[in-house]
Amino acid sequence: MFEIKLDNAKYWRDCVASIVSLVDEGLFNFTKEGISLKAMDPSSISMVSFFMPEKAFSKYSVDKSANVGINLENLSKILSRTRENEALVMKDSDNKLSLEFISPSSRRRYKLQMIDVKKSVEKEPNVDFEAHVEISGDQLKEIIKDAGLISSYIAFKATKDQFGVSARGDSGELEALHDKNGEVIKKIDASKSADAVFNLEFMDNMVKSCPVGNSVLIDLKSNEPMKMTYKIGEADIAYFLAPYMEE
Amino acid sequence: MFEIKLDNAKYWRDCVASIVSLVDEGLFNFTKEGISLKAMDPSSISMVSFFMPEKAFSKYSVDKSANVGINLENLSKILSRTRENEALVMKDSDNKLSLEFISPSSRRRYKLQMIDVKKSVEKEPNVDFEAHVEISGDQLKEIIKDAGLISSYIAFKATKDQFGVSARGDSGELEALHDKNGEVIKKIDASKSADAVFNLEFMDNMVKSCPVGNSVLIDLKSNEPMKMTYKIGEADIAYFLAPYMEE
Amino acid sequence: MFEIKLDNAKYWRDCVASIVSLVDEGLFNFTKEGISLKAMDPSSISMVSFFMPEKAFSKYSVDKSANVGINLENLSKILSRTRENEALVMKDSDNKLSLEFISPSSRRRYKLQMIDVKKSVEKEPNVDFEAHVEISGDQLKEIIKDAGLISSYIAFKATKDQFGVSARGDSGELEALHDKNGEVIKKIDASKSADAVFNLEFMDNMVKSCPVGNSVLIDLKSNEPMKMTYKIGEADIAYFLAPYMEE
Repeated sequence: MFEIKLDNAKYWRDCVASIVSLVDEGLFNFTKEGISLKAMDPSSISMVSFFMPEKAFSKYSVDKSANVGINLENLSKILSRTRENEALVMKDSDNKLSLEFISPSSRRRYKLQMIDVKKSVEKEPNVDFEAHVEISGDQLKEIIKDAGLISSYIAFKATKDQFGVSARGDSGELEALHDKNGEVIKKIDASKSADAVFNLEFMDNMVKSCPVGNSVLIDLKSNEPMKMTYKIGEADIAYFLAPYMEE
Repeated sequence: MFEIKLDNAKYWRDCVASIVSLVDEGLFNFTKEGISLKAMDPSSISMVSFFMPEKAFSKYSVDKSANVGINLENLSKILSRTRENEALVMKDSDNKLSLEFISPSSRRRYKLQMIDVKKSVEKEPNVDFEAHVEISGDQLKEIIKDAGLISSYIAFKATKDQFGVSARGDSGELEALHDKNGEVIKKIDASKSADAVFNLEFMDNMVKSCPVGNSVLIDLKSNEPMKMTYKIGEADIAYFLAPYMEE
Repeated sequence: MFEIKLDNAKYWRDCVASIVSLVDEGLFNFTKEGISLKAMDPSSISMVSFFMPEKAFSKYSVDKSANVGINLENLSKILSRTRENEALVMKDSDNKLSLEFISPSSRRRYKLQMIDVKKSVEKEPNVDFEAHVEISGDQLKEIIKDAGLISSYIAFKATKDQFGVSARGDSGELEALHDKNGEVIKKIDASKSADAVFNLEFMDNMVKSCPVGNSVLIDLKSNEPMKMTYKIGEADIAYFLAPYMEE
């Protein structure tokens, strides 16, 4: 049994958006510490790991740990209907997840059927990253669109002082260099240079929920999975994405 | 022969939009009192009844009553081309409806072929309504979108103090309660409680032309057709919608 | 070998948009005087003639004339990625066109493969125009939309004092008259009246890149090709469009 409350329902909407961009359904784990979800996308190329601590909620009552399997697309649609200044109360009720949106003179309650979701392997890739890049989330979204004109893949290369992006396709090629401590790249911390190629569509799905103005941390090691992390308010969202290896 | 003028052509555009949302063609009746149109939608589930009094026009000259059959979709497209600050003169001319848009240095005249439209049964349903609900038009549009996530039908229930909305579908269910005298429900006048289920797409088409900021009046009786009315400036628009009866 | 620079990359984006609206690929001619391109659309109904003088560039170095065949759709997509406040350097490099977008801390370089483009007949129609009409580009865009409701063709008629537009279709007809020296028609200079009918889709593609607030010059002679010209900054863009002759 759990009952948790957020003063601003839009916050939960934005959190769920960051998960549904990769996976259609998932298993939320409600514990005394907070809510977490780990899932691989159906193709097993990427993984999302979400955690929202209990302090992010205005009321947080979880008497014992619970796993709640949810169709995330349906949940996301319901959350898209959030109005301004609505609070949200979530609780479990008869194998349903109840979402109650509350404003001064109205109450709107959706009940979503819980579903069986197989607990997926929750092991995060264990990579000894060699380069850590802090990049403007807004600029990273632009960079992904730049590369999308040319290719379905994008190469990242981090050196001590620069972050490079390249893409190659039939119509031409793109090369971009961004100095550290600039408008795009806030910081680079690289013990050695690292480069790898990634699927652009997954990258796009990963970064698109990053709140406007926030930074994204990218961890790289040559030809190894990358890790991308950012905050949505108090919540931590981390993604892993396998590199693309040309055969 | 008639010749009528509106100082703001956009007003007529908005009126026609409220009709074309339910019916493709219709018969305008021009009389000394004003312009009216009554029509059922092709499926006979809903009816629209429109009236715009002569005082809404800056010039209104109708020497004898006239019925003008018009393809409302074509009329609506022409009216969508209205610019800011244009006056509109409508008259009949050789079995055509002439629409002249006038600004200081330009005149633009469309002539629309009149068409044969069978005069449909003009009897409005005779229901002894038991509940009258005044609701914010803007909020009603939101409520319809809420329910559309879950179902193609929506149930309304008016009691003395509250207006309830519910929908049920495979993915879950929605229940919303709105207190009277609040942001959503301005007023309720119910001799007894009334509830009925309606088709959501028709409801959406009915409310969508309600001007921003205006109220909608909903009249209900359990399992009887509902009536929805609102004003567009001086014009009165009324809709009737048959209830959905589960078999 | 050439190397040219624009302080505002968006300027070149807008210029290319005015060409790609009619032709998919084209041959830019780089000379000491500036950059030009002439091309007929695939159906040979219309022609575009573009010229941008060297003074429009902040750096312009062309050591000998060069023809550069380019897929204009790909070029246009790349230019659509221009950010605010970016400079653009274009040069040739190994049979590729290099486009480098430069901001204080970032450089982004696309290389576009040059392509073989047959040099098309560059003869502009030789018409002894009888009427010259200066019209607001913004209003001409509206006029084209007005006519598009009724027909795929539009008739222009210029007299000494008025500019008339008409269209005829199954659903009705449109006639618009615009006085000279008004909001729509800035000026008319007509030795005799001139009228002709034109394809509306081509007309739309021709006018749509006219910058907001700019005037368009239309030259007419009865039943002869029209000429439409406007400026994009320092660049001159001219279009020719054959009249439509009913059989």
